[in-house]
Amino acid sequence: MILRELAERLGCALRGDGDVEVRGVAGIEEALPGDLTFLANPRYAHHLATTRASAIILPPGHETPLPSLVSDNPYLSFARAVGLLRPQGRPPSGVHATAEVDPSARLGPDVHVGARAVLGPRVRVGARTALHPHVVLYEDVEIGEDCVLHSGVQVRERCRLGNRVVVQNGAVIGADGFGFARDAEGRYHKFPQVGTVVIEDDVEIGALTAIDRAALGETRIGRGTKLDNLVQIGHSVRVGEDTVLAGQVGVAGSSQIGSRVTLAGQVGVAGHLTIGDGVVATAQTGIPNSVDPCTVVSGYPAIENRAWLKASAVFPKLPELQRRVRELERRLESLLERVGGG
Amino acid sequence: MILRELAERLGCALRGDGDVEVRGVAGIEEALPGDLTFLANPRYAHHLATTRASAIILPPGHETPLPSLVSDNPYLSFARAVGLLRPQGRPPSGVHATAEVDPSARLGPDVHVGARAVLGPRVRVGARTALHPHVVLYEDVEIGEDCVLHSGVQVRERCRLGNRVVVQNGAVIGADGFGFARDAEGRYHKFPQVGTVVIEDDVEIGALTAIDRAALGETRIGRGTKLDNLVQIGHSVRVGEDTVLAGQVGVAGSSQIGSRVTLAGQVGVAGHLTIGDGVVATAQTGIPNSVDPCTVVSGYPAIENRAWLKASAVFPKLPELQRRVRELERRLESLLERVGGG
Amino acid sequence: MILRELAERLGCALRGDGDVEVRGVAGIEEALPGDLTFLANPRYAHHLATTRASAIILPPGHETPLPSLVSDNPYLSFARAVGLLRPQGRPPSGVHATAEVDPSARLGPDVHVGARAVLGPRVRVGARTALHPHVVLYEDVEIGEDCVLHSGVQVRERCRLGNRVVVQNGAVIGADGFGFARDAEGRYHKFPQVGTVVIEDDVEIGALTAIDRAALGETRIGRGTKLDNLVQIGHSVRVGEDTVLAGQVGVAGSSQIGSRVTLAGQVGVAGHLTIGDGVVATAQTGIPNSVDPCTVVSGYPAIENRAWLKASAVFPKLPELQRRVRELERRLESLLERVGGG
Repeated sequence: MILRELAERLGCALRGDGDVEVRGVAGIEEALPGDLTFLANPRYAHHLATTRASAIILPPGHETPLPSLVSDNPYLSFARAVGLLRPQGRPPSGVHATAEVDPSARLGPDVHVGARAVLGPRVRVGARTALHPHVVLYEDVEIGEDCVLHSGVQVRERCRLGNRVVVQNGAVIGADGFGFARDAEGRYHKFPQVGTVVIEDDVEIGALTAIDRAALGETRIGRGTKLDNLVQIGHSVRVGEDTVLAGQVGVAGSSQIGSRVTLAGQVGVAGHLTIGDGVVATAQTGIPNSVDPCTVVSGYPAIENRAWLKASAVFPKLPELQRRVRELERRLESLLERVGGG
Repeated sequence: MILRELAERLGCALRGDGDVEVRGVAGIEEALPGDLTFLANPRYAHHLATTRASAIILPPGHETPLPSLVSDNPYLSFARAVGLLRPQGRPPSGVHATAEVDPSARLGPDVHVGARAVLGPRVRVGARTALHPHVVLYEDVEIGEDCVLHSGVQVRERCRLGNRVVVQNGAVIGADGFGFARDAEGRYHKFPQVGTVVIEDDVEIGALTAIDRAALGETRIGRGTKLDNLVQIGHSVRVGEDTVLAGQVGVAGSSQIGSRVTLAGQVGVAGHLTIGDGVVATAQTGIPNSVDPCTVVSGYPAIENRAWLKASAVFPKLPELQRRVRELERRLESLLERVGGG
Repeated sequence: MILRELAERLGCALRGDGDVEVRGVAGIEEALPGDLTFLANPRYAHHLATTRASAIILPPGHETPLPSLVSDNPYLSFARAVGLLRPQGRPPSGVHATAEVDPSARLGPDVHVGARAVLGPRVRVGARTALHPHVVLYEDVEIGEDCVLHSGVQVRERCRLGNRVVVQNGAVIGADGFGFARDAEGRYHKFPQVGTVVIEDDVEIGALTAIDRAALGETRIGRGTKLDNLVQIGHSVRVGEDTVLAGQVGVAGSSQIGSRVTLAGQVGVAGHLTIGDGVVATAQTGIPNSVDPCTVVSGYPAIENRAWLKASAVFPKLPELQRRVRELERRLESLLERVGGG
């Protein structure tokens, strides 16, 4: 594709030679002639002088001899360019001969059902959705349009996925929540998990992530929210819209996570809490109490991020601080002895 | 079902109209007419005045105009009521045409083997056990009676599960433990993991949980113990009875976890430790040393919970504490200068 | 096998009766007559007097009446002995009738393809590699020689595995990295993940571990590196050689982990960092910044291990330290009042 055509399709201003041909995509350091690259973080601007790319997407205000596309959001424009230059094929429409589709299941047009997939009674799958090999949908599952479920995904009975939902390999949606009632002898008895899971439109779910069904009612993941790999969502949790949960995050049962929240890697949220809209928790934060909207929190137990940064900076000095207190005590004691009294 | 019948089946005292019909189950805030609900935590007692439920299970000593069942353990009684009002169907007995069952495998009566399941040589499956689609049992696996293994579960060679064991989707039982011997050049050589895993009766194992086989001997999960999702159990670990391991807990090789232990979410236990009976570890606790029975621990490295709570409360004040020490030093210095001496 | 033969095959010096027959292998406390055991950690040397084993592998300098093999690396020698005494069968060569192998796939000699495995277009599998039931290889995957992929493993399009790679059950190699570009309205748009994953020779990958494909370029795991269960490797991460990542470790996107690194259980590494060769991070360490080679780090944020140990020892005393500072302030105040001035 020539750069001029890309400029038009991305809605970016073109600078320099619009006839240059771009065939590949690469990071600014790895790019070779023929590649399109991008500059999003000004920290990398010094690579402008040395990159071997044939063209670049960059924000306004940078000088470069390279043919360029100017974008206020170069990372988003580059993401779209990658989609245009490296289109990812859809698997062909049709049901593989070895798939096991219950006669009562209903499939929309142009659905792909891969080898060994199993679709239970009354399953519904929307138009153009791709179910890769070894996907298992229990009875009464509903999947919307234009979804992609990768191989090994398991969706349990009655769970519902919206449109354009992407589920990476091996994720489990709708396993029983972890609910047990303890008797007088200290033995646990299963609380039947009769609720369900609802995944709204445009959600992405990472590999080997588990989203448990509710005990009663539903577990819900809001529109546009993105979950990374190995995330654990407990029963009856509700997650808002456009929220990001990074790898290995865990959210215990019945907690509510707001919209536009970011939980970084390995963050844990206890049960029955409310995490407000726009909250950010840095990596490994442990959240035992509800958090007000738009707060940045860190540490365990989580406190306001700036307070945590300051306290964490003092932490390695604790042995020295202890010594100084001991020395103060000694000196004060000796002074008191000298001046008499105490 | 009318409330009088439910009272009889649960062994609860009935108060009010026993002829009221209950059809559904719901939480106290979400319940609608026709629903049975419950009150376990007195914190929610104020909802008694406003719930729309038709009947309620609650502990002695609460006033309500609703038809009620009185129980000393309302949560357990409600769990049983859910089982009665929302019975979960068993899949039909029989072996699906697409299941691959080795001729040497032995299946008890009324077993369900789902589509695409694979049962290796000499596998034994007890009566009424359900193996959902895509379950894989390697050779010589033994599964007891009345078990449920959900889709995507993998059980490796020679592992044994007792009776009434429930395994949620995608869990892996008996993968090789993480054992390597390092040579003089710093390269790692696999220590063959020739042991096995034993899961005792009434255990539940969460989705995408991994329980490794022992290097030698066995890894063992005790009767009635419940493991949540994404839990990691290292080789040769032993877990006692009626213990609860919450989501994303990790236990390193050869550690022993006692009975009636509770490890909250994301807790980590190092290898070769003994965690006594009745220990509780709060979320994200890291345990590098053995813990005495009936201790409550927190933090990393884990310390007694009350000490940790008090120290954690001081942590955010560290910068202030540092300032106060500096100020004390300054004032003492100036005083010493004034009175002469040091 | 008689001990003399074992001595020859392991290259160990024999002490005592070389005709003793060893049939089994066991730990020093569990061993029975007929078993071979080992002593690696001197902490267990007192068991030499009581073990019931018929023979033992141990380091020079220990006295025992037992027939023994002397080794400078008893654990490594014992690992090899286990491999000889308890050889693990390879599954038979051949493609199971229910496997789905695309006609364009190429299989080397003596490959095993288990029941229900799915091999996509243009897949290549090297000699003697075993693909257990339900393995899924997307199109253009390349697997080397003498590999073992256990049941439920998913390998995505174009990923490449070297020789002698072992992948435990349910692991996912090559799922999409977690890359999204945010637009002005705060919505996330997928950055197409068009890169791949390369696994070098002699790597072992644990059960339910996820290694994401790169956005552009490749994610790479170096020769001889061992990953435990439930590990998360983000897109474009590079891991060096002979490195060990323990259970539930998470490495965020684009970070580089050196060679001979050890990350203990539940360690988290933020994105875009460089972790030098020979670094050790103790369990649950959170690493927000790059780490110099051969450093031992602990805590969150990670600091040098010895400093962390000392500071952690003071942490429980924080309430007392706070009291002492308050007392110092009170006494200094009263002294100042007495001597006049401030």
